[in-house]
Amino acid sequence: MPRKPPIKLPTPESRRVGFAIVGLGKLSVEQLIPAVRTSQEGYVAALVTSEPDKGVEFARALGLKDSDVYTYEGFEGLADRADVEAVYIVLPNSLHREFITRAAKMGKHVLSEKPLGMNAKDAQKIVQACHKAGVLLMTAYRCQYSPHHWAARDAVQGAQLGAVKLLDSIHVQVEDDPTVWRLQKELAGGGPLPDVGIYSVNTLRFVTGQEPEWVFATLHQPKKDKRFREVEESVSFMLGFPDGVTANVHTSYGAFKTDTLRVMGDRGNLLMDPAFTYEGLKLSIETKDGTMTPSFPAYDQFGLEFDHFAQRVRDGKQPWTPGEEAVQDHVIMDAIYESAHTGKVIQLKAVKKKDAFRGTRPTLPSAEG
Amino acid sequence: MPRKPPIKLPTPESRRVGFAIVGLGKLSVEQLIPAVRTSQEGYVAALVTSEPDKGVEFARALGLKDSDVYTYEGFEGLADRADVEAVYIVLPNSLHREFITRAAKMGKHVLSEKPLGMNAKDAQKIVQACHKAGVLLMTAYRCQYSPHHWAARDAVQGAQLGAVKLLDSIHVQVEDDPTVWRLQKELAGGGPLPDVGIYSVNTLRFVTGQEPEWVFATLHQPKKDKRFREVEESVSFMLGFPDGVTANVHTSYGAFKTDTLRVMGDRGNLLMDPAFTYEGLKLSIETKDGTMTPSFPAYDQFGLEFDHFAQRVRDGKQPWTPGEEAVQDHVIMDAIYESAHTGKVIQLKAVKKKDAFRGTRPTLPSAEG
Amino acid sequence: MPRKPPIKLPTPESRRVGFAIVGLGKLSVEQLIPAVRTSQEGYVAALVTSEPDKGVEFARALGLKDSDVYTYEGFEGLADRADVEAVYIVLPNSLHREFITRAAKMGKHVLSEKPLGMNAKDAQKIVQACHKAGVLLMTAYRCQYSPHHWAARDAVQGAQLGAVKLLDSIHVQVEDDPTVWRLQKELAGGGPLPDVGIYSVNTLRFVTGQEPEWVFATLHQPKKDKRFREVEESVSFMLGFPDGVTANVHTSYGAFKTDTLRVMGDRGNLLMDPAFTYEGLKLSIETKDGTMTPSFPAYDQFGLEFDHFAQRVRDGKQPWTPGEEAVQDHVIMDAIYESAHTGKVIQLKAVKKKDAFRGTRPTLPSAEG
Amino acid sequence: MPRKPPIKLPTPESRRVGFAIVGLGKLSVEQLIPAVRTSQEGYVAALVTSEPDKGVEFARALGLKDSDVYTYEGFEGLADRADVEAVYIVLPNSLHREFITRAAKMGKHVLSEKPLGMNAKDAQKIVQACHKAGVLLMTAYRCQYSPHHWAARDAVQGAQLGAVKLLDSIHVQVEDDPTVWRLQKELAGGGPLPDVGIYSVNTLRFVTGQEPEWVFATLHQPKKDKRFREVEESVSFMLGFPDGVTANVHTSYGAFKTDTLRVMGDRGNLLMDPAFTYEGLKLSIETKDGTMTPSFPAYDQFGLEFDHFAQRVRDGKQPWTPGEEAVQDHVIMDAIYESAHTGKVIQLKAVKKKDAFRGTRPTLPSAEG
Repeated sequence: MPRKPPIKLPTPESRRVGFAIVGLGKLSVEQLIPAVRTSQEGYVAALVTSEPDKGVEFARALGLKDSDVYTYEGFEGLADRADVEAVYIVLPNSLHREFITRAAKMGKHVLSEKPLGMNAKDAQKIVQACHKAGVLLMTAYRCQYSPHHWAARDAVQGAQLGAVKLLDSIHVQVEDDPTVWRLQKELAGGGPLPDVGIYSVNTLRFVTGQEPEWVFATLHQPKKDKRFREVEESVSFMLGFPDGVTANVHTSYGAFKTDTLRVMGDRGNLLMDPAFTYEGLKLSIETKDGTMTPSFPAYDQFGLEFDHFAQRVRDGKQPWTPGEEAVQDHVIMDAIYESAHTGKVIQLKAVKKKDAFRGTRPTLPSAEG
Repeated sequence: MPRKPPIKLPTPESRRVGFAIVGLGKLSVEQLIPAVRTSQEGYVAALVTSEPDKGVEFARALGLKDSDVYTYEGFEGLADRADVEAVYIVLPNSLHREFITRAAKMGKHVLSEKPLGMNAKDAQKIVQACHKAGVLLMTAYRCQYSPHHWAARDAVQGAQLGAVKLLDSIHVQVEDDPTVWRLQKELAGGGPLPDVGIYSVNTLRFVTGQEPEWVFATLHQPKKDKRFREVEESVSFMLGFPDGVTANVHTSYGAFKTDTLRVMGDRGNLLMDPAFTYEGLKLSIETKDGTMTPSFPAYDQFGLEFDHFAQRVRDGKQPWTPGEEAVQDHVIMDAIYESAHTGKVIQLKAVKKKDAFRGTRPTLPSAEG
Repeated sequence: MPRKPPIKLPTPESRRVGFAIVGLGKLSVEQLIPAVRTSQEGYVAALVTSEPDKGVEFARALGLKDSDVYTYEGFEGLADRADVEAVYIVLPNSLHREFITRAAKMGKHVLSEKPLGMNAKDAQKIVQACHKAGVLLMTAYRCQYSPHHWAARDAVQGAQLGAVKLLDSIHVQVEDDPTVWRLQKELAGGGPLPDVGIYSVNTLRFVTGQEPEWVFATLHQPKKDKRFREVEESVSFMLGFPDGVTANVHTSYGAFKTDTLRVMGDRGNLLMDPAFTYEGLKLSIETKDGTMTPSFPAYDQFGLEFDHFAQRVRDGKQPWTPGEEAVQDHVIMDAIYESAHTGKVIQLKAVKKKDAFRGTRPTLPSAEG
Repeated sequence: MPRKPPIKLPTPESRRVGFAIVGLGKLSVEQLIPAVRTSQEGYVAALVTSEPDKGVEFARALGLKDSDVYTYEGFEGLADRADVEAVYIVLPNSLHREFITRAAKMGKHVLSEKPLGMNAKDAQKIVQACHKAGVLLMTAYRCQYSPHHWAARDAVQGAQLGAVKLLDSIHVQVEDDPTVWRLQKELAGGGPLPDVGIYSVNTLRFVTGQEPEWVFATLHQPKKDKRFREVEESVSFMLGFPDGVTANVHTSYGAFKTDTLRVMGDRGNLLMDPAFTYEGLKLSIETKDGTMTPSFPAYDQFGLEFDHFAQRVRDGKQPWTPGEEAVQDHVIMDAIYESAHTGKVIQLKAVKKKDAFRGTRPTLPSAEG
């Protein structure tokens, strides 16, 4: 049974990594800021927002000073803030490149929400800007820091399931507000694929440690539905992994919340359902002996993600999910769109190396007594 | 909690429909014969087998006479048996056409295991032979007689899930005996697709009442594995249903037993897991209010199937799953193989009519007190 | 996932044990007769009923002759039937002693439904009658022949749960027909306790292998409800097992179907829910590593029970659940009623020996390939 | 699926209720302080601890000043702190009365952990002290503020289950540190009963709205186990509710974590499993139609509890779970110990009024969009 993580006495702020949160949307307010506040190694030092009044209100509620609030135009004011070592980019996708580049130029390390960019080319430019500036860039793939997902990966790559044969994932939800930026192609780059489908793509790559060799996709965009004038409602696709292992994936903004991951081996199968929620993840592994549902010590996914990044800021090593990891997802998503638009199978460049785009392995929380 | 079906006092044999079971394999012995024995409206009157000694042994155990056992060569001996009104064909697929045709010529009604034939053309010939002879032909799609699957169909076609958006099904299992006829192409016609994948194809068609418009497929056949010298190990495919609804499907003889069906609507989703087992089927429907797992009165899938066919023998009406229903599955499976071999999307002939290939709706068992 | 048991080719009737089914109520018709029909080692050779017309109808449906039907008065006609080696007593409780005694006098072995008698003294007389006649007596505690319950017993008595600390069981259901014999004290001896509560008592004793040392009970009998004019609606009781292990138990004819068993150890706990149904039993074991739900090969509880008795008839050994096992349940149930009526704790005679009242250990079905 | 509660913009501290947390144990550090920090209506203004160094360290980590830390001796220093309107007592049970009385004398409102006192008499004195001082007193029964438990209560008191017939609850866990104050009778007042068993007692009273009329109990204290020299390992008890409804309850410090609640009615049953955890509560309701598992908007149990108390501080009304509610639990627990020690049924004073000891009904969080 998941429980709240034990709150160890946090490092005093003076030794923790100060973050500027860039963008005060729902994710920031509901998940990231609470997580940073309980993080062992990071804290919120500044807020950057297009709505200064809202920012001041939040700052006060968070115990920050009014002067800790910055506008998008005044973003470079952070340059002088030695206590702000890193920024967390929580903006519409189309703004990532600009703000990451500006942050990198100030020498701030960057943690960015997914998708990293608008497409592979855009994401590649972002990676280059950070390399050039000598700052760390990490993509916020929280599932790659979750003990449930690491246990799934261990089962897949270990002996428990036998040889992996087939993969299946679904990540769909209803987006019912036609005005959100996520439904505007110029801001989001795409529809459900880069927002929720990316979880399936990224997690399938993570649990196998492998890269797909080809994709086939179909998409559905009912333009008479005002939500889907610019972006697709659904994308269904296949990813062809090495050795004939095929993944079937659905993603959608039009279907009731479902998020699952299945891995079928010749000696057992693995199910995560739900697979991508913030809380309540459930993993089960079935073999001829029966079904095992492992238990885990309590943890907070966002907190683990923050802690990993803060540790990398301290030691200067490449994060487990650097910008390169995100570029690869964009390469695959670009191919998915191309397949859906041409009706043809799209081949991808073969990648033999395991975990080819990943950095320093994260430390998982140890079990409680 | 499923329980054994209530055993009403069965009709005395003199009024029930006498069946000849043609083929004494595992399915006959473990499922069909026990089901016919407890059927309300049918009974086993004769056995047809290539192994007369085994047949006699079974006959004695079943309380039949030695003279109730027929060889394949002596099949036509049934012509004189007025008490044998129907045959149940449980033979390797390649023998279906011959034995159904011979049975039809004797004026016996035919219940055949799935797949009906080796391919669409073969199945079509089978249908024609029965039409010509004026006998009924029913394909043994037991899931179309199961209260769980009818409840799923009602949820999909009713208001509970809202508009259907996406479909997903998996039916895989390990076939580890390289000598079985199911792995020989000349006997089986194909590998896991016509044996277990057919459940997904048929059930997706049944719960939606619709027909796919296109298919895309990929298959994996590791010929160095002696089991897969002739037939594929796995097939993964997409079925494009009307209105942009896509089904993702996996089928395999190489992956640990998994059988599921998911239907995602805009207001809820439906899961059957397991979806295709003989017993222990589980249906759950999730909406914003929570998850509902309906309960069902006890029933036996094979018994319901038999009873439906026996009723049709008595009233002469077209069964719910006639030969035509099976031909359509073959049309789709032929297209799946074609897509897998060409790497291209295959278009299917549009079918607008709902339940286009089905006959008389079955009567479901009513709830117990 | 439980499936139908594999139907091995049964022994021809001539070598199987022929049973006379005494009493054609719901249990006989829905469960026992179907089970005997698929039993490997037994078969139905005769029917004994107070309603000869119904008996003849059943006989015909079962392929028996009209002369295989006996009335209660004509019961002794079975004496001459060498093919009838055993009787299965499925009568109202108050008739058990008479019919078992009459059967024993004819030299027939006896399998009796639970409860064996009306109370401990009555059950003891039954045991004596069979001993005197030199026939076997087995009480039909089907859960003691179920692989799920044996796996539970192994977990309890092995190392998996650590030291056993507490026990809990519930077996309740709604009896809504005020006319059934089970609600008449002269026929049933009591209410839900000897009918459904006995499952909890017997299974707690079985999984621990131990005997309770004391009982405390309370009962509720709302006499204005016409169903409960003679017998209680509910009994709640505690059984004090050795070493301070206490079992809490509920049984009722007034509450919606619930049947569970919990065993709590210091290193894990075990749950069966449902614990006592004919099909769909579910066992799960939770330890610090997670929750394991073992899988089992398919089996039929009644079939296993029959087979065990038939084997004992063949080898003459004491069945696993002889009459003595049932006498002990009656001793405990008598004490439960006494406690409920006096409001006091009732001490039981200490029994140190493990499985003190049981005979030859049953053979469990082996796993399928 | 439970998710993190939406973090609405909290009230600025100047308008929120300032709390002094009295006692910095595991519960304070892991649950209460994080919850107060995310509370909409409260905040941590001061810390009271016997270990000032630890207090200062926490204060700094929480953004408080060193001068916000008070020792037990210096507790009255809070009298001058107008910003500290309330105290939250998280001390060993034996210290509750002293500190609550001291707080009340300073005019501070009191939220106290359960159990409120050492026994009914002690708890009654605490209630009197707060009444006399004119301050509010609320017992921290978090389950009475949880939407899951309110939904259970609604099902029990509404029509869904029909007439309630039987109750069952288990709350056990392993306490393996022999040095904790909870195992010292002078500090804790008892063993698992007032610590974890109290959840069962309190929740059974809450969901039914009724009070037990009698108790019977047995306890087990293996004094050779050094953990149980002073307090019991386990207590098993029955509570007799009105109309013959009996509750069976187990509580223990010696058995693997289990926490459940069952309510059996004549038309359905209700299960909470787990029933008392901080997160991951699960409610399911079974009727003849099937099993429903309702979904809930995300919430934090401690946060809802804090908010309710802060609202009562603002409006001056009696909290839903005032001191009187806790006195009644003590009355029942005193009777449980008396029964266990005498072996007799103990009658309780009849209480006819529904929710006899409760105050202002809490406002439940409304569903998210």
